Amino acid sequence: MFTELKREAYEANVALPRHGLINLTFGNASAIDRAKGAFAIKPSGVDYAALSPADMVVVDLDGRRVEGRLNPSSDTPTHRRLFLAFPGVGGVVHTHSSHATAFAQAGRPIPIFGTTHADYFNGEVPVTRRMTPEEIASAYEWETGNVIVERFAALDPADFPGVLVNRHAPFTWGPSVGKAVETAVAVECIAHMALMSLRLAPDLEPIEAELLAKHFKRKHGAGAYYGQA
Amino acid sequence: MFTELKREAYEANVALPRHGLINLTFGNASAIDRAKGAFAIKPSGVDYAALSPADMVVVDLDGRRVEGRLNPSSDTPTHRRLFLAFPGVGGVVHTHSSHATAFAQAGRPIPIFGTTHADYFNGEVPVTRRMTPEEIASAYEWETGNVIVERFAALDPADFPGVLVNRHAPFTWGPSVGKAVETAVAVECIAHMALMSLRLAPDLEPIEAELLAKHFKRKHGAGAYYGQA
Amino acid sequence: MFTELKREAYEANVALPRHGLINLTFGNASAIDRAKGAFAIKPSGVDYAALSPADMVVVDLDGRRVEGRLNPSSDTPTHRRLFLAFPGVGGVVHTHSSHATAFAQAGRPIPIFGTTHADYFNGEVPVTRRMTPEEIASAYEWETGNVIVERFAALDPADFPGVLVNRHAPFTWGPSVGKAVETAVAVECIAHMALMSLRLAPDLEPIEAELLAKHFKRKHGAGAYYGQA
Amino acid sequence: MFTELKREAYEANVALPRHGLINLTFGNASAIDRAKGAFAIKPSGVDYAALSPADMVVVDLDGRRVEGRLNPSSDTPTHRRLFLAFPGVGGVVHTHSSHATAFAQAGRPIPIFGTTHADYFNGEVPVTRRMTPEEIASAYEWETGNVIVERFAALDPADFPGVLVNRHAPFTWGPSVGKAVETAVAVECIAHMALMSLRLAPDLEPIEAELLAKHFKRKHGAGAYYGQA
Repeated sequence: MFTELKREAYEANVALPRHGLINLTFGNASAIDRAKGAFAIKPSGVDYAALSPADMVVVDLDGRRVEGRLNPSSDTPTHRRLFLAFPGVGGVVHTHSSHATAFAQAGRPIPIFGTTHADYFNGEVPVTRRMTPEEIASAYEWETGNVIVERFAALDPADFPGVLVNRHAPFTWGPSVGKAVETAVAVECIAHMALMSLRLAPDLEPIEAELLAKHFKRKHGAGAYYGQA
Repeated sequence: MFTELKREAYEANVALPRHGLINLTFGNASAIDRAKGAFAIKPSGVDYAALSPADMVVVDLDGRRVEGRLNPSSDTPTHRRLFLAFPGVGGVVHTHSSHATAFAQAGRPIPIFGTTHADYFNGEVPVTRRMTPEEIASAYEWETGNVIVERFAALDPADFPGVLVNRHAPFTWGPSVGKAVETAVAVECIAHMALMSLRLAPDLEPIEAELLAKHFKRKHGAGAYYGQA
Repeated sequence: MFTELKREAYEANVALPRHGLINLTFGNASAIDRAKGAFAIKPSGVDYAALSPADMVVVDLDGRRVEGRLNPSSDTPTHRRLFLAFPGVGGVVHTHSSHATAFAQAGRPIPIFGTTHADYFNGEVPVTRRMTPEEIASAYEWETGNVIVERFAALDPADFPGVLVNRHAPFTWGPSVGKAVETAVAVECIAHMALMSLRLAPDLEPIEAELLAKHFKRKHGAGAYYGQA
Repeated sequence: MFTELKREAYEANVALPRHGLINLTFGNASAIDRAKGAFAIKPSGVDYAALSPADMVVVDLDGRRVEGRLNPSSDTPTHRRLFLAFPGVGGVVHTHSSHATAFAQAGRPIPIFGTTHADYFNGEVPVTRRMTPEEIASAYEWETGNVIVERFAALDPADFPGVLVNRHAPFTWGPSVGKAVETAVAVECIAHMALMSLRLAPDLEPIEAELLAKHFKRKHGAGAYYGQA
């Protein structure tokens, strides 16, 4: 039934270790079929090297497994929450990539210091508030999605295609799961560069508004002129 | 006699450089057969590329070589001490992985700053006290095991599956040597991320008790729900 | 028509990710045929893995596409500006390599701390001033070239074969595009080492004039004695 | 004539980039035949990928080329000076490996913070004084050897099998060139770890004398018990 969707989710999942974003089995990617209201996601705790497209688990937006024999990723409720809250999103990626996770652990957003960053985000990479003991004790992974959604109350997920979950790690998204993978690579890269720029200039201010707007709009929106489209 | 045990130890040893945990010939892994009271370990100073399963040396819990022509790793008495003290342990891994060793050299535990860490350890990665001149001058490698055991007087080795030996490097363990390898990878990864988080927030406090308990218990104990088991 | 020139530009472009200088699709290389007044450059936003020599786009010094079906890199006007201003330059390379970009983001030149650096640059790697809102709003990529040219008012581009664009990333050049790639590798390497030397000695002064002159002249000019030439 | 010596030097040279010690063409290795009073060394400025054993250049201890068509490495006089001063040395390696070079640029020795370091050096990795303008202006590469020899006036090159040349980069040596390569790997590794330990503990003192003696003597001298010998 979901052969193509599972292949797409599979390709995204195996791209993560290839890009150096994954340690051990930390991380997962999902792709949604909006018409059918279901998404394909990585099974829980399976080694990337052993993964095949048929292993992907398909879950509907009510959280019911509709295809696949394995347990879906334990982070599935977070993905589901994001698909419900962000209707324009076609894919979600979660990694524990090292430099981005260092910012998440410190509870700091990734400041926007250059054009590399501005090509992907319309400002800093936001960080959620810490979760409460109650949120952690109840439906933890669903509540993880909720603190992300709360952080985006006044942010457009198309302008900010990712977030750092405080004390945890990054999530990214995009119109397709392939684009969400690309953004996960970008988040790790800009986290690494921001860390070094901060070492060189501890009080470095964010880039100028004009430069941010120029670069973000080169790649996004009606006036985009980057690439072949 | 110990064909399967030696193969298991061999697989663990050659996994170490593949995971980037080994520089030169620093590091070794061992697997124990509790019924037979003997463990297989890497020979001393042999290049990983030249290793074969038949090269593994089998040593009993009194320290006698029971199979194999080569000298066992010079760290064999440390492994033996840990197998004797921690009856639930099926495998031990020792590396000089760079970031974890940096903490060991500085004599600092790896603080627990995020969920990546909490998935493996029920708190900080502990560090031993420094060894005395007497301990160093006598049975040095056996005494290395003793300072680890001393550090675990009030700690459960299942909750804390590894340690940093002060001025030296990490040891990890687990129910199987494969799991001990996985934990060695995790220790290196969380050391790297902790170092960067400390740079971003020098006074960063450890994660909240609820978040620690949640993540550790997602993967450990009766209520675990991570993976396919 | 430009088969050889396109092959040369292609080889330089695919060398960039092989040297670890490229994240995602950030970066491009171009090679000029001075006799024909045209240069070959990477197409915009195309994945390096999918690139072929025939994909290269040839643009003349007035900015007109003279060969190729794809859109040229969005950075083409910067390359064109440099080819016009620096007549001795045969190739230009742009990357977002991580350590060099960290200096560019911080708006700091790369200080010259050792002989590795002196083998390539006759002093620090310069950084441009920030661009004005007007420059950003108008012909941005052309103006990027202009701030580089302005920075070189009193510098010889043969003595300083590269620059950091403030808030952005490095550009390098050379008599051939192959040499510009080599300099891009060198810039990333010396940025990494300078960052670490600064950590060890925050007030470190640049190398002595005699040592700089010795190393730069070992490889450049009439008295060069490095290599086989 | 020197087929085996050239093969040995060749193997050492191509091992350097494989161990990640080389950027571009920085670095070279040489092996000496003491009976014949001549050593084989890498040709100058040749890409490692293009190297063959026959390309090695053989130079005698008076500095005359006795075999090979290519120019020897521009660093040949430094190697020659070391072979003359240190009669127990069978091979010399020079790299610009990043972390060790960061210490050299800063003019700081690599402090001895752990057992990894003590397995190779009987104390800190020493650094030379800066070279004078006169030394730089005259026979620069020969004088580079002289400042190393001067630094070893009161040090045994068997106890300290390497040095950092101030403002420049590391040189290592050993009874064979293969062992000198291994020490070059160790120097880069301990430089990296020392840098991180200093970040965690800026005032960290060197390891205890007993621990240093224990580890150095596990691998060196009459009481050595590491390995299979």
